[in-house]
Amino acid sequence: MSLDQAAQKPIERLSAVLAPDMEAVNALIRRRMASEHAPRIPEVTAHLVEAGGKRLRPMLTLAAARLCGYEGDHHVRLAATVEFIHTATLLHDDVVDESAQRRGRPTANLLWDNKSSVLVGDYLFARSFQLMVETGSLRVLDILANASATIAEGEVLQLSAAQDLRTDEGIYLKVIRGKTAALFSAATEVGGVIAGVAEDKVQALHTYGDSLGIAFQIVDDLLDYGGTSAVIGKNTGDDFRERKLTLPVIKAVAKATPAEREFWRRVIEKGDQREGDLEHAMALMARHGTMDATREEALAWAQKAKAALSTLPHCELRDLLADLADYVVARVN
Amino acid sequence: MSLDQAAQKPIERLSAVLAPDMEAVNALIRRRMASEHAPRIPEVTAHLVEAGGKRLRPMLTLAAARLCGYEGDHHVRLAATVEFIHTATLLHDDVVDESAQRRGRPTANLLWDNKSSVLVGDYLFARSFQLMVETGSLRVLDILANASATIAEGEVLQLSAAQDLRTDEGIYLKVIRGKTAALFSAATEVGGVIAGVAEDKVQALHTYGDSLGIAFQIVDDLLDYGGTSAVIGKNTGDDFRERKLTLPVIKAVAKATPAEREFWRRVIEKGDQREGDLEHAMALMARHGTMDATREEALAWAQKAKAALSTLPHCELRDLLADLADYVVARVN
Repeated sequence: MSLDQAAQKPIERLSAVLAPDMEAVNALIRRRMASEHAPRIPEVTAHLVEAGGKRLRPMLTLAAARLCGYEGDHHVRLAATVEFIHTATLLHDDVVDESAQRRGRPTANLLWDNKSSVLVGDYLFARSFQLMVETGSLRVLDILANASATIAEGEVLQLSAAQDLRTDEGIYLKVIRGKTAALFSAATEVGGVIAGVAEDKVQALHTYGDSLGIAFQIVDDLLDYGGTSAVIGKNTGDDFRERKLTLPVIKAVAKATPAEREFWRRVIEKGDQREGDLEHAMALMARHGTMDATREEALAWAQKAKAALSTLPHCELRDLLADLADYVVARVN
Repeated sequence: MSLDQAAQKPIERLSAVLAPDMEAVNALIRRRMASEHAPRIPEVTAHLVEAGGKRLRPMLTLAAARLCGYEGDHHVRLAATVEFIHTATLLHDDVVDESAQRRGRPTANLLWDNKSSVLVGDYLFARSFQLMVETGSLRVLDILANASATIAEGEVLQLSAAQDLRTDEGIYLKVIRGKTAALFSAATEVGGVIAGVAEDKVQALHTYGDSLGIAFQIVDDLLDYGGTSAVIGKNTGDDFRERKLTLPVIKAVAKATPAEREFWRRVIEKGDQREGDLEHAMALMARHGTMDATREEALAWAQKAKAALSTLPHCELRDLLADLADYVVARVN
């Protein structure tokens, strides 16, 4: 590896290795997001699809298929499928969260309206479904149908878990497995299935995606409190203001003194938040070491992801997937 | 047929003939709308599923399969699939239309919130998808994937067509084919496909469902203006207030004098509606005979639906489907 390559982030190196496949995926996405009758659809979709997302999920599918020696072209369809499902959930999430910004741009629900976001999301789900049917693999359809149900279930669970101090680490894991890891694990698993590899390798790809997704979401939740630096940054505290119970908070609530518990009850359950509350919440998390403990959990999941790769053939792509797992948690190192 | 049977509506007779199958469908729906992790899901779904809908769409699937001599049990899964897709679209429609009532009860978005309606709708789509994968028929999956895309496309097209006087009969047909007929035609078509009948019969079932769905929606739109009686009733004028361009209005706009055109521009395009405008709109439609012309079109689609049945084996179910087509338009006779 040259110095130049070493300086690149794993996701950029993955993107470079998979560039021809990724171009085919992007072309397919552009073709399939069109609608003969309803020009609103490609407008809304393009706003999101072309906003420069990292295309992490479709790359996972491409990498898994190639790693397993796949030579056909269904992996391109599946990668586009996965990106469409992801885009559809983003559109619906922004309606649910009443978000105003996504990837540094105004959200579709703000630029158009909630109606368009709901219906265009539905359209992209249907489009993803058409794409996967084209692969002709019932196994792939089964995996993606189950993933879709798990995603929606995780999102609904998150709704009812928010603002509820009884939310424990078990519920948190179910929520993030649903809202994030289910699509990661389906993305890698279908890559192996389409390549026709043995069951232990399919299972390894599933475990890799699942663990990577969990690590990714834990880190995301940690970054919402500024990572482990406990310095308040630009986007710090969104989850706090939305009264979402993420891992560092859940751990702090579990260790809370009676007075601290009263604080959490006021800011999370009652939603009565005042000047300085975010800083106090972060001080409590630092006092109980829950930011570090959360980071340790993310590291353990990344380790689990890397360990799963050992079943798979050793090659450049496998190394890149291992580096990707390290990179995902390095964001809070 | 006894006098007692003759007095029953075709949909009630269909329901009686298909009762054992329909019980199996209802049991399957109850099992599959459950969620181990998110109790909110069955709460929201039950509110809608058990509100006493007519179950017209799943009955179409059951009738089509039985009519084609099907003896297996996949038709039950497909009927539940179709009902789940329908319920999911109702949940999302109520968010999009900001509706407060559905089937005489407060809507889910009002009882819970828009978030729950969006996410539980997504969950039901995913559940429908799992059910259809269980049939193991790629042809069925293809039909339902295409129908899902057409439904969403029709809904988005309706969004952009509303409040736009350029909406013509061609656009209207695309909208209602999407929002209503696509699920009717998929419902009947998959019944034939699962029964393994010849292509001409599958096509006949598609045509029956498509034409029935179009007739059904035209009549629904006509009933929103009180049918052909031109008497203002309890729910008259919802489409007018929402500035939706339905067939009787589109036909009246096409025949409008310059002064009438100004009126339509004010009430539909500008949304400046005043006391007496609905009555004036209905008077204009009566003057140009567009209510009657719309009813004629619905009758023609019902005739087309009945004609399509001639390819199929003659039996009690076929007669019931023919009666159903008559009944759908009889609502405005």
